[in-house]
Amino acid sequence: MTDVPVSSRATQPHLDRKAPPPLPEGGLRVMALGGLGEIGRNMAVLEFDGKLLVIDCGVLFPEADQRGIDLILPDLGVIEHRLDDIAAVVLTHGHEDHIGAIPYLLRMRGDIPLVGSRFTLALVRAKLREHRLDPTSVEVAGGDDHLAGPFRCEFIAVNHSIPDALAVAVHTPAGTLVHTGDFKMDQLPLDGVLTDLGAFARLGAEGIDLLLSDSTNAEVPGFVTSERAIGHVLDDVFDRATQRLIVSSFASHVHRIQQVLDSAETHRRKVAFVGRSMVRNMGVARDLGLLRVAPGLMVSLDEATAMPPEQVVLVSTGSQGEPLSALGRMARGDHHQVTIEAGDTVVLASSLVPGNETAVYKVINGLARLGATVVHKDTARVHVSGHAPAGELRTLLNVAKPRYLMPVHGEWRHLRAHAALAEETGMARERVILAENGIVVDLLDGKAAIVGSVPVGDVYVDGLNVGDVGEESLQERRILGDEGFVALTVVVEPSTGTIVRPVHLSARGFADDPAVFDEALRLVEENLRRTLEDGETDPHRLSQVIRRTIGKWVSDTYRRRPMIIPTVLEV
Amino acid sequence: MTDVPVSSRATQPHLDRKAPPPLPEGGLRVMALGGLGEIGRNMAVLEFDGKLLVIDCGVLFPEADQRGIDLILPDLGVIEHRLDDIAAVVLTHGHEDHIGAIPYLLRMRGDIPLVGSRFTLALVRAKLREHRLDPTSVEVAGGDDHLAGPFRCEFIAVNHSIPDALAVAVHTPAGTLVHTGDFKMDQLPLDGVLTDLGAFARLGAEGIDLLLSDSTNAEVPGFVTSERAIGHVLDDVFDRATQRLIVSSFASHVHRIQQVLDSAETHRRKVAFVGRSMVRNMGVARDLGLLRVAPGLMVSLDEATAMPPEQVVLVSTGSQGEPLSALGRMARGDHHQVTIEAGDTVVLASSLVPGNETAVYKVINGLARLGATVVHKDTARVHVSGHAPAGELRTLLNVAKPRYLMPVHGEWRHLRAHAALAEETGMARERVILAENGIVVDLLDGKAAIVGSVPVGDVYVDGLNVGDVGEESLQERRILGDEGFVALTVVVEPSTGTIVRPVHLSARGFADDPAVFDEALRLVEENLRRTLEDGETDPHRLSQVIRRTIGKWVSDTYRRRPMIIPTVLEV
Repeated sequence: MTDVPVSSRATQPHLDRKAPPPLPEGGLRVMALGGLGEIGRNMAVLEFDGKLLVIDCGVLFPEADQRGIDLILPDLGVIEHRLDDIAAVVLTHGHEDHIGAIPYLLRMRGDIPLVGSRFTLALVRAKLREHRLDPTSVEVAGGDDHLAGPFRCEFIAVNHSIPDALAVAVHTPAGTLVHTGDFKMDQLPLDGVLTDLGAFARLGAEGIDLLLSDSTNAEVPGFVTSERAIGHVLDDVFDRATQRLIVSSFASHVHRIQQVLDSAETHRRKVAFVGRSMVRNMGVARDLGLLRVAPGLMVSLDEATAMPPEQVVLVSTGSQGEPLSALGRMARGDHHQVTIEAGDTVVLASSLVPGNETAVYKVINGLARLGATVVHKDTARVHVSGHAPAGELRTLLNVAKPRYLMPVHGEWRHLRAHAALAEETGMARERVILAENGIVVDLLDGKAAIVGSVPVGDVYVDGLNVGDVGEESLQERRILGDEGFVALTVVVEPSTGTIVRPVHLSARGFADDPAVFDEALRLVEENLRRTLEDGETDPHRLSQVIRRTIGKWVSDTYRRRPMIIPTVLEV
Repeated sequence: MTDVPVSSRATQPHLDRKAPPPLPEGGLRVMALGGLGEIGRNMAVLEFDGKLLVIDCGVLFPEADQRGIDLILPDLGVIEHRLDDIAAVVLTHGHEDHIGAIPYLLRMRGDIPLVGSRFTLALVRAKLREHRLDPTSVEVAGGDDHLAGPFRCEFIAVNHSIPDALAVAVHTPAGTLVHTGDFKMDQLPLDGVLTDLGAFARLGAEGIDLLLSDSTNAEVPGFVTSERAIGHVLDDVFDRATQRLIVSSFASHVHRIQQVLDSAETHRRKVAFVGRSMVRNMGVARDLGLLRVAPGLMVSLDEATAMPPEQVVLVSTGSQGEPLSALGRMARGDHHQVTIEAGDTVVLASSLVPGNETAVYKVINGLARLGATVVHKDTARVHVSGHAPAGELRTLLNVAKPRYLMPVHGEWRHLRAHAALAEETGMARERVILAENGIVVDLLDGKAAIVGSVPVGDVYVDGLNVGDVGEESLQERRILGDEGFVALTVVVEPSTGTIVRPVHLSARGFADDPAVFDEALRLVEENLRRTLEDGETDPHRLSQVIRRTIGKWVSDTYRRRPMIIPTVLEV
């Protein structure tokens, strides 16, 4: 069937929901506030001798049923009372799901030192400027050591879909923990930076007590295709394109963009960046020497649109179908500068992040409808993943030889597949720790074990609102979004038991024609009058009459259950 | 890059939006009410000499932003005034996107003859019984001829992911139109029914003027893997499973279920069907001899749950992540009869229909969290598609040699990819007709051309409500679902210009704590009082004051735009 054992039979220690005991002296505690049981908001908190070390602090993007939500943060409330104990935040790389929540953490304590690579810190600084925050930072590179409180952090270069990614080995008297961050093992990386297997092997020989390793692609068999392979595909697309060419990708994928620039140079097309984050990040990458730009290659979008279409390539955001992105607007035919013509070529040189399928195909269909040739991951190899698949995860396990493995960065299916891979390589089942967010793992006397859990919630960012929108509001949005509402207001005179003003109805999202409610309104008034005649004037009871009457009518007539909001006002 | 040319440069005749002229005498008119520019609600309407022939009449499943909607129907309003002209409805096969809207059409005229194969009609009849409708039907098989008004229909056996599928050649004095229905070319079909290439070749030799052909997989290179290959994978899963085994698939995929039954027999497991549609459809298939069931193989779910887990396999619905399905409940741990145990095996032997990704992965993760081994299309070949990919579409074009091709059954990306395949096989660009729903194509004097279009809309089924919920209600649901609402009611005494009752606020979906509105309420009352003091008592103007005040406050404070519902009542 496949070379990937899809799951393991590891037992279910994660169902243990008791509060953890105090951390014993000499023990190292590990807890994830995000990234376990989900893809995103990666954040691990380590504790030793009263001090905390945070590894990554990212955001999670909402699912379709978390309506109106912009971002989901790790539950920082768990460490709120211990902010002064944080020795540092180590950042493995500059993706949003690893750095996106930093502004919210720094708002709570602005001088927490951030430790990361040059490109990572440059992206973080650009982000923090928008939040008017100026961080304290320490720049490190693969091979560097940095002491943060009792944590000696040793950094290891890894290869990922963004330059300058790092893994980190954290040495404490309790033992050594290694966190891979996100990684893969491209053996022909464009920038020559390989995942440093030698360092993992040396650490393995010295003894890794607990390995936290990226599980995102644990279900995918084999080994990653080199990023370099995409260059040939892009060249082929450039060869065939006779009109305008637009390439869309992630705004942080410097290597992918580099290949577009290289193809453009070869094919004598000028390049314009489109989209705020693309312009910003590629500026940073260029300043740091990570993006090589041939002299005269770049033009502004204004210049590009004035040139013959066959002489330019636009490099754009919007590869995830974002409706407000440049590409989203082009697909609907309402971009103010770029109009898609029959015969144009658009390349979506990116993965399709789960949950974005509908939006992405909507963009592809919009472009196809306008006559563009759309090249995307279903039709050509214009993307390779940034995460190690099964073959590479096995390799790392065999090289690093950890005593314990805790799969991280994955939904349950990925964590369990990673556990199965570990068992295959010979790890005993009880040495694989399957945990989810909030589960507390202690490393003590060379043994790692789940000791309890702390409750962690979802912190929603909703406009400027951080944390005020909770599950209750979301549940209301689900009902309102699926069913609409019917609000009925009546003014009564309690002393005489009479209705002063006829029942006023507002309904939204229920039926286009408000006349459907005529019959229902008659019923409500009739029932209200009868109740009042019986001497009942309590507004709460009258509200119940309204709710029951309209609820039954809607259910009988339409088999629907809109939200019903009765209001009884007394004069 | 791939052997599939992803797109064609066919011009954009579909942008022509003028009303069509009357159909010239001797002409054949073709118009799709569904299935062009979308996957679903397939329905083509043919007209000749004042009579209509309908080919398929299916439903479309809503997208995530069409909230609360159960189904989307083709816009039957277009043919409403011509119901008596309908000679017949030809049904190519029994999938919902081909038969689902039949009840709504028959409600308009109950005696329209339905023409289809034995299994198709059996499924339609079962569906119509639930709607208390008793259809007039004509059973046909591959090779049969049926005359419906001026349309001589010749049926051709095709292979698809449901038994008893047909293509149809419609012979009229204007020429011959062939509609493939949905098809693929599995050369080792489980039931021995091949797509009848001989018939397509003969019709091609006689002359096919216009071919309407399934485009669903036009972007997929190569040829379909035989359904038979899945049998080996299932056997492998059965070999490895030591506890309970649950296989989920489409409730109409008789061949897939047959293979599960075969594997179960080999591995001495009893089988129980779970889920209403699975039980119903497999009953029909068994009655018609399409599903072979070994004596003593089947047990009830009650019997199955009482047996040792390693002796049963449950065959269940829910492969698309439906939260209320049996599998959806098991994944959340709240099925009343089946509890997932660590070590159980669950197979999702189906495709992942676009738009269902989030729901399906939620089910997979839920099962994985409970300790099940989950085998799905990402980890093993447990599904092959029912639609012809590029290689087979080219083959059909070469065999059938149509004068004109109109790609059907696909989103724009599929239609355009199909057009590109046709151009590759040597068809002139102007002989490929790219149309979307409502576009009218006339075949006259051997020439097919777009002559105009009629407006077609989306008819939403929402509970018992058919058509009352329109774009306006959906737009309100979107706003309510994303932002919630704030309703403010105030009672004023216009003669004195005073507020009789303080402003009453109801908000939902906005913030869990209603105290966030205290400040806003103060502002509203202040502005209202000032307006009343200025002598303004018009309820509409007072409503505007409320709307503006609260709108500005919410926008300034939260950068959100909830729906605002002001109500001013006078006493």
